[in-house]
Amino acid sequence: MKKVGIIMGSDSDLPVVEKATAVLDEFGVPYEVHVYSAHRTPLEAKVFSESAKEKGFGVLIAFAGMAAHLAGAVAANTTLPVIGVPCKGSVLDGMDALLSTVMMPTGIPVATVAINGGGNAALLALQMIALTDLELGKKLDEKRKKDAAKVLEKDEAVAAKFNK
Amino acid sequence: MKKVGIIMGSDSDLPVVEKATAVLDEFGVPYEVHVYSAHRTPLEAKVFSESAKEKGFGVLIAFAGMAAHLAGAVAANTTLPVIGVPCKGSVLDGMDALLSTVMMPTGIPVATVAINGGGNAALLALQMIALTDLELGKKLDEKRKKDAAKVLEKDEAVAAKFNK
Amino acid sequence: MKKVGIIMGSDSDLPVVEKATAVLDEFGVPYEVHVYSAHRTPLEAKVFSESAKEKGFGVLIAFAGMAAHLAGAVAANTTLPVIGVPCKGSVLDGMDALLSTVMMPTGIPVATVAINGGGNAALLALQMIALTDLELGKKLDEKRKKDAAKVLEKDEAVAAKFNK
Amino acid sequence: MKKVGIIMGSDSDLPVVEKATAVLDEFGVPYEVHVYSAHRTPLEAKVFSESAKEKGFGVLIAFAGMAAHLAGAVAANTTLPVIGVPCKGSVLDGMDALLSTVMMPTGIPVATVAINGGGNAALLALQMIALTDLELGKKLDEKRKKDAAKVLEKDEAVAAKFNK
Amino acid sequence: MKKVGIIMGSDSDLPVVEKATAVLDEFGVPYEVHVYSAHRTPLEAKVFSESAKEKGFGVLIAFAGMAAHLAGAVAANTTLPVIGVPCKGSVLDGMDALLSTVMMPTGIPVATVAINGGGNAALLALQMIALTDLELGKKLDEKRKKDAAKVLEKDEAVAAKFNK
Amino acid sequence: MKKVGIIMGSDSDLPVVEKATAVLDEFGVPYEVHVYSAHRTPLEAKVFSESAKEKGFGVLIAFAGMAAHLAGAVAANTTLPVIGVPCKGSVLDGMDALLSTVMMPTGIPVATVAINGGGNAALLALQMIALTDLELGKKLDEKRKKDAAKVLEKDEAVAAKFNK
Amino acid sequence: MKKVGIIMGSDSDLPVVEKATAVLDEFGVPYEVHVYSAHRTPLEAKVFSESAKEKGFGVLIAFAGMAAHLAGAVAANTTLPVIGVPCKGSVLDGMDALLSTVMMPTGIPVATVAINGGGNAALLALQMIALTDLELGKKLDEKRKKDAAKVLEKDEAVAAKFNK
Amino acid sequence: MKKVGIIMGSDSDLPVVEKATAVLDEFGVPYEVHVYSAHRTPLEAKVFSESAKEKGFGVLIAFAGMAAHLAGAVAANTTLPVIGVPCKGSVLDGMDALLSTVMMPTGIPVATVAINGGGNAALLALQMIALTDLELGKKLDEKRKKDAAKVLEKDEAVAAKFNK
Repeated sequence: MKKVGIIMGSDSDLPVVEKATAVLDEFGVPYEVHVYSAHRTPLEAKVFSESAKEKGFGVLIAFAGMAAHLAGAVAANTTLPVIGVPCKGSVLDGMDALLSTVMMPTGIPVATVAINGGGNAALLALQMIALTDLELGKKLDEKRKKDAAKVLEKDEAVAAKFNK
Repeated sequence: MKKVGIIMGSDSDLPVVEKATAVLDEFGVPYEVHVYSAHRTPLEAKVFSESAKEKGFGVLIAFAGMAAHLAGAVAANTTLPVIGVPCKGSVLDGMDALLSTVMMPTGIPVATVAINGGGNAALLALQMIALTDLELGKKLDEKRKKDAAKVLEKDEAVAAKFNK
Repeated sequence: MKKVGIIMGSDSDLPVVEKATAVLDEFGVPYEVHVYSAHRTPLEAKVFSESAKEKGFGVLIAFAGMAAHLAGAVAANTTLPVIGVPCKGSVLDGMDALLSTVMMPTGIPVATVAINGGGNAALLALQMIALTDLELGKKLDEKRKKDAAKVLEKDEAVAAKFNK
Repeated sequence: MKKVGIIMGSDSDLPVVEKATAVLDEFGVPYEVHVYSAHRTPLEAKVFSESAKEKGFGVLIAFAGMAAHLAGAVAANTTLPVIGVPCKGSVLDGMDALLSTVMMPTGIPVATVAINGGGNAALLALQMIALTDLELGKKLDEKRKKDAAKVLEKDEAVAAKFNK
Repeated sequence: MKKVGIIMGSDSDLPVVEKATAVLDEFGVPYEVHVYSAHRTPLEAKVFSESAKEKGFGVLIAFAGMAAHLAGAVAANTTLPVIGVPCKGSVLDGMDALLSTVMMPTGIPVATVAINGGGNAALLALQMIALTDLELGKKLDEKRKKDAAKVLEKDEAVAAKFNK
Repeated sequence: MKKVGIIMGSDSDLPVVEKATAVLDEFGVPYEVHVYSAHRTPLEAKVFSESAKEKGFGVLIAFAGMAAHLAGAVAANTTLPVIGVPCKGSVLDGMDALLSTVMMPTGIPVATVAINGGGNAALLALQMIALTDLELGKKLDEKRKKDAAKVLEKDEAVAAKFNK
Repeated sequence: MKKVGIIMGSDSDLPVVEKATAVLDEFGVPYEVHVYSAHRTPLEAKVFSESAKEKGFGVLIAFAGMAAHLAGAVAANTTLPVIGVPCKGSVLDGMDALLSTVMMPTGIPVATVAINGGGNAALLALQMIALTDLELGKKLDEKRKKDAAKVLEKDEAVAAKFNK
Repeated sequence: MKKVGIIMGSDSDLPVVEKATAVLDEFGVPYEVHVYSAHRTPLEAKVFSESAKEKGFGVLIAFAGMAAHLAGAVAANTTLPVIGVPCKGSVLDGMDALLSTVMMPTGIPVATVAINGGGNAALLALQMIALTDLELGKKLDEKRKKDAAKVLEKDEAVAAKFNK
């Protein structure tokens, strides 16, 4: 099975990263985590991105805040799909990271998820891998059903409280 | 080969959609295009999304402006990866569409690209399909080289003009 | 009397919802509360919206945060008036929810109130129901007078402190 | 049948107002149009709002740009439901008008629609009136179906062009 | 001496108002404080504004948050200069109040100061009154000098710490 | 009678300045116009501001775009009331100029009007001067009435068209 | 004399770049211009940046729009001072480029100028080079005087028109 | 060696300033710190800026919040390179300070760094001084390597935790 490669620009992004690894653990999909800054260790970020395909990675997820260049820098060095997670890492509520991640020029897409959306980044990676892994696809469908059931449980609790 | 499903919320988004179909045509990847509004034809949008996987679609791309719910509505009905293209369709420069597309709650990711980023949406879809299509992956790598070559041609032209 | 239907996308919006139910309780107007997510339980949201009119609901109020699609998804499935309450549910102070709720395309209006404006959503629903309930209309007028009186009491307190 | 009262803060908002009157004409619902500025003719705006209920108005729609106070000023003087249409009337793309219209304090709701959303304001007014006018409710349902049919016609045209 | 009239839309704005009264007390300029909401007590706000000139007020200061209409509503009913203080009273950091206060249409100016800028509102009022009160003008000049002296004291403290 | 001092940071702001001079001409109030940049001619801006009071100016109006420092720089050198007009002079629709003008620190107020609000700046200056010029105050009241009459004329025209 | 290195991410930024080269030509400071995209030709951008110091460049200026990573990518590969010029290259007025350029993490500064501020970028580069080039410093001082003189000429023209 | 001149508009900016002095101390570069407000002590700010070059300063760094004019006011009075640090000093997260600092008009550049980016301001100053101080340039290169090493240490720690 293809591995998921996870890179964060700073270990201060770890709480958001762990939302992603929790999901990947839940689905039993292998992954590798690294701290490579687009600015402080550009070489390591580049080498990792360039060699990711041949090392068996199928999807890469990049986490960064502020002028969040990491996802774009990774995407510039591979044609694997790259998911960008803008992290609230500055005084600007993550809007700077969102725009820096999503507004990529033609030719180099980054699949951007919500600010601090680590869990969804992992789910999106799983959806991509599931394109050729029917079993994983089924698990994703089941997870959806479980999520729906949880909402409906909450609906029951709320209904019991309010609707008499 | 997996098909790409393209849905736009309004045919006013067609110019942005055609940036995507041009890329898919260039790579010879099959696709199907529809106009289904999340608000005016919610049933058709739902039916299309629900049945997309079994109909052989591998990736879906949704184009919408303003309170751009289409990508989210599609994603709510499938576990295929869904790419969202926020379109500048109102007086607000597309910022409304961007936030409506990208800020999805946990459980239902949308892979968001830049405002009006139709071309990148198609490239991202191709990158996902290429996860199991080595030939397509090579074509994407070649495209990157051609894009780089074009930049370097422009560099030569600019250098010839300015650097004596 | 027409009932008010209240749907929230997540039970984390409950504190804002309770501002609305408190107002409805104060006026003795019947209501029903549900947790239905536009993304995690799209079917339940759809079924509820489609059948709301015949089940005796007169107005629906939808509460949601982030890419707040719930009000729009409800409005797409009924011609009852739908009130949208954007909830501060993300890192962006509710601006994402506001734009996702209010910037609806032509054909499917959502009556949007202030971010976290649960109380005003209920008052707006009451104003609509009062169109054919003269008694309720009078109560709303009396409430206005009481609200004004409260302001004037505060004015007296402040005047007593500052104006000698 | 209840009349719809339409007030604009300046006749420069007329093009947006006419989106509303076109819808009301289409449904044969009576209305009255006025130019009353919250700032330049506060008295007329007040008198109109205060007397609207007894004059047979059921819903009021206020159109204004910039620091758009009109809807709030109208709402402060009646308990009829008031719909606010923020108009792009300044250098700021209507964001100033949106916030000035929607962020109302508790007690005085304004049902806000999209920037320049004159058509949806009229539809929302019709939905309110339809609470006690079954015939009008049916017409709204039919209009929805026609709108959906138009989208599907466009879908056919687009499908004919792209899907072979 | 002309009095300064202070109106706040809600007594939750009191901490910002007290920045203003502290300055007026410091200069010994008479003032009167009221809680009049543009929306909940529009009549009282109107009556106060209309009669302010003849009651001996020279300048009015209005404090309000969210869709901050108070300053505009006051200005609509008098040709006395009206100072608007946008208050951070909602989830949006006061940007809604700022735009609602400052973006007034031609004909009805509001002299807007910074968000929560109660102290500066009072100073501005004093500067206006000082147009015909030479003594007050001198006091303002002295205050400036004292403020400058305080900055230079801090400069000395900082210089002592850092510059050796 | 006190003169109004008008300074613009660049003669590209002239169209907005002329909205102000037209109003001052209409009221017959004397004024003087200068082009002094806070950045390119800081000395001239300073000298003008410092000497304004003794030269018979009663109010100063500063027009500037982008990082609009002019009003603040003028205000730093006088205790005359200073009105700031943020001008749309960059790619950012004047929001940069608005924030640069209005968000002044405690001690140095700037009376800010709407972006490009030259006319209102002049009216505000007249309101200040009218504090001791009863005749001017009456003219301002009459102008208000004329403005109101114009709105009501437009109301008649619109009513004649729509209300039958 | 140290050379100035100019890199643009796309030749669509050329009009902004030419504002910079015009200033450098005026001062007779040598420069070299290149089109290197941070995303499409990351290697060339990296090689140029890494070798810039030893090739005799003293300052680098990077021009880019949208998710403007170029300045940061250049800065990551050199300790020469790097000036970033955010270009209006998308639907968002350059705010995306501004935040992507200026919000750099600790360790890798980018000296950011105004959106589209090519001329100021060149002046800033000259100010840096002038740190050890007294002659250039004098020329910059003279330029300032000429700029001031131009403003005062405009002041005379305006004064002649308005001040009689 | 050229000294670095540091000016803050208010001693409330001291925590951000100390990020800068810590870096300068680390590199052993001399500096001088002052509290001079552009608005409260404009004369001192002007005198310091005008005389900075002849007093042996090579670079100036200005720290200010809100309508942050200090960097621009300093830059208006010297042709030394001026670095601006927008400080989060108001209710608006520093966006007001950022725009007030960076959007300078042509002729007077300010080298702007991230909001609260005191450390990067110092590094940028060092990079400028290093243009003629080879030793300092080497130290900056070494610092980069150390920063990279720290990132890689964190990478090891993270890898040890996650990658088994």
